[in-house]
Amino acid sequence: MPVYRLDIAYDGTDFRGYARQEGLRTVQGELETALGTLIGPGVETSVAGRTDAGVHARGQVVSFGHSDVLDLDRLRRGLNGILGPEIAVWSVGLAAEDFNARFSAVWRRYLYRLDTAPAADPLTRGFVWNVGRALDLDAMSVATSSFLGEHDFSSFCRSVEGRSNVRRLTELSLRSESGLVEVWAQANAFCHQMVRSIVGYLYDVGRGFSDGTRTAEVIAAHDRGAVATVAPPHGLTLHEVGY
Amino acid sequence: MPVYRLDIAYDGTDFRGYARQEGLRTVQGELETALGTLIGPGVETSVAGRTDAGVHARGQVVSFGHSDVLDLDRLRRGLNGILGPEIAVWSVGLAAEDFNARFSAVWRRYLYRLDTAPAADPLTRGFVWNVGRALDLDAMSVATSSFLGEHDFSSFCRSVEGRSNVRRLTELSLRSESGLVEVWAQANAFCHQMVRSIVGYLYDVGRGFSDGTRTAEVIAAHDRGAVATVAPPHGLTLHEVGY
Repeated sequence: MPVYRLDIAYDGTDFRGYARQEGLRTVQGELETALGTLIGPGVETSVAGRTDAGVHARGQVVSFGHSDVLDLDRLRRGLNGILGPEIAVWSVGLAAEDFNARFSAVWRRYLYRLDTAPAADPLTRGFVWNVGRALDLDAMSVATSSFLGEHDFSSFCRSVEGRSNVRRLTELSLRSESGLVEVWAQANAFCHQMVRSIVGYLYDVGRGFSDGTRTAEVIAAHDRGAVATVAPPHGLTLHEVGY
Repeated sequence: MPVYRLDIAYDGTDFRGYARQEGLRTVQGELETALGTLIGPGVETSVAGRTDAGVHARGQVVSFGHSDVLDLDRLRRGLNGILGPEIAVWSVGLAAEDFNARFSAVWRRYLYRLDTAPAADPLTRGFVWNVGRALDLDAMSVATSSFLGEHDFSSFCRSVEGRSNVRRLTELSLRSESGLVEVWAQANAFCHQMVRSIVGYLYDVGRGFSDGTRTAEVIAAHDRGAVATVAPPHGLTLHEVGY
């Protein structure tokens, strides 16, 4: 059966997350309804990153199998017509028959943006967390290095019973310009709320609430209670997925 | 009488422009109502750039005289509390007694953003004009040079009877990255719809509808009918004002 790949983006503000939930407006729900309209009912999609309510995506990847040979350009235009402007379909392509957006992915890369201005910027307020205070970026940078590599990230995950929280983080970097701070995080995969918990922790370090030199201990504690702050969802964007 | 200066930003999406209009929701209307609540009625403000409906600002400047000595930080926090998140007040300061946000300004700088992706990016759709097609940036760049200097810009203005359309444009530059095109325009002042008309013209050049090598003739025509396209307001942001 042919497998199709969609590269999509969305403004997560008014969705209850990516994953379909009965009776709630979700990205998957809207997408599968649109696919049903365009190519027939019963399409089940797989996704690279099941983002939480309020989280955005620029480079999300979705796949599905379909017995028909589809007109790719027509499907893309049809989906954008139904789903825009909150959801954009950048491309529709034919993938290898063993391609699965979730299981074939080898890394995910997220961007979290926060800014330190005294008031939220009206033009970015939907996509940037305004913390409204200066942050000690040097202390935050020192803390980031402890995260790299393979760890049990239970201190930074909303755990699911019986599931491992071991992940391999290959990038955690800060970029700062004119009061805007970008936190880039790449890993083979992320457990639930992991990026927002890491950013919340870095924020606590940056405002002097947590001691960044003890980050390795916080990770080793494997204790969700060791991290006080979870950054709000609207600052987070799934940026890219690697295959 | 002390003169106060406000540096503000706003998301113009849901305003009928900056300038106060009876019965309509405008930035000036909201701002003066908030000032009335905080420091008493009857405050009349002056502004550097009276942006149109749907146009945004990051570096707008407003001034007003007030007989009282005001607590600047308290006023800033009070205004942000009332006006946020669509309007942000970056700072409130005491200006020279002869300062007037409009008449003291020596230049204004605008940013217009457009993108060439096949669909609008959900995360920037409120602030970027998605033209949905490739543009010939080289041809657009050639056209920009003809605009520099002092000209009668009647071809690019919604004229007001009896008012001069002579302006001195000191910058008109393009920056392009990953399909996003930024048009930066700086002048001593702009006449009505001037940036959007210039961008609309550059877009026509970029899509091959107008011949960019004839730009000097179009300017010299002093004829509003010579320019077919006015770019939509939501791509435009008043970026900075010089004093």
